[in-house]
Amino acid sequence: MKSVYLLSCVFALIALFALVEVSGAEEDAKPLSASPIYGVTIPAGYRQWELIAPALEDAPLNELRAVVGNPKAADAYRHADLPFPDGTILVKLAWKRTPSKEFASATVPGAATTVQVMVKDSKKYASTGGWGFGRFVDGKAVDEAQHRTCFACHQALVRDHDYVFTHYAQ
Amino acid sequence: MKSVYLLSCVFALIALFALVEVSGAEEDAKPLSASPIYGVTIPAGYRQWELIAPALEDAPLNELRAVVGNPKAADAYRHADLPFPDGTILVKLAWKRTPSKEFASATVPGAATTVQVMVKDSKKYASTGGWGFGRFVDGKAVDEAQHRTCFACHQALVRDHDYVFTHYAQ
Repeated sequence: MKSVYLLSCVFALIALFALVEVSGAEEDAKPLSASPIYGVTIPAGYRQWELIAPALEDAPLNELRAVVGNPKAADAYRHADLPFPDGTILVKLAWKRTPSKEFASATVPGAATTVQVMVKDSKKYASTGGWGFGRFVDGKAVDEAQHRTCFACHQALVRDHDYVFTHYAQ
Repeated sequence: MKSVYLLSCVFALIALFALVEVSGAEEDAKPLSASPIYGVTIPAGYRQWELIAPALEDAPLNELRAVVGNPKAADAYRHADLPFPDGTILVKLAWKRTPSKEFASATVPGAATTVQVMVKDSKKYASTGGWGFGRFVDGKAVDEAQHRTCFACHQALVRDHDYVFTHYAQ
């Protein structure tokens, strides 16, 4: 009886270690959240960055948006300093547009949808106008196919503004 | 002839001084931009403050808006710390909503319309929920009649959120 008890303990311990091991592996396997192609990540502290401008995106997305920029970005905007210097980072936050519960004529942010990042590095991203792109849903980068579309659109529509759509809201 | 010339010079000098005087007076008379009733002014550096949330206001105003808050405001939002502490300042920027020239489905900020300010001082503004209000167009406070409407509406609609409409956009 004693040996059965001991054997159970050993199995329990093995199971426990295996569990810990798997959890550890899962922890390591957590998405690094670097975008395909560009390796862009969500920058720390971006939610405190200066507002560049809010925007509204029509159906089917129906989103309220806000672009914020790091100090390099904000300085460049303030001094109309194009092209943006290396180290510029722009982050676009987006939320489902939702009717305000408190004020009938107002629309306010609902659930967050995507976070989109542009990083300026004229050497690293020389083939895409000096910009690296990242598109994230729930903190995870979306797939490569989606990232293939970023630069083509920015290049086609806003090449003359250093590939950036957003203007500073004065 | 000489005396006429001298007299002209004297008149010219008097006219010049008068002009300088008037300009100086106009400089002094520049609106202090303190709101009626509350004496609230536009706070320095607010354009760099943290975004609390963007919003959209329907017709007839048709505005894109963004509320930003000073560090006390942002901290209070982050910690869901109601009522807001004294020293909290919220600023709402507003722009005419304008179709983006670069992206058909987007609406972006056009001309700035109003800047609206709420300042928390529970003693100074005890009779209005602890809040002082300021509404500014082109940097100048609007009239007293408009300022009479602020608290009544905030009191009627968002008393339970310390008289503040805006929620933090996560």
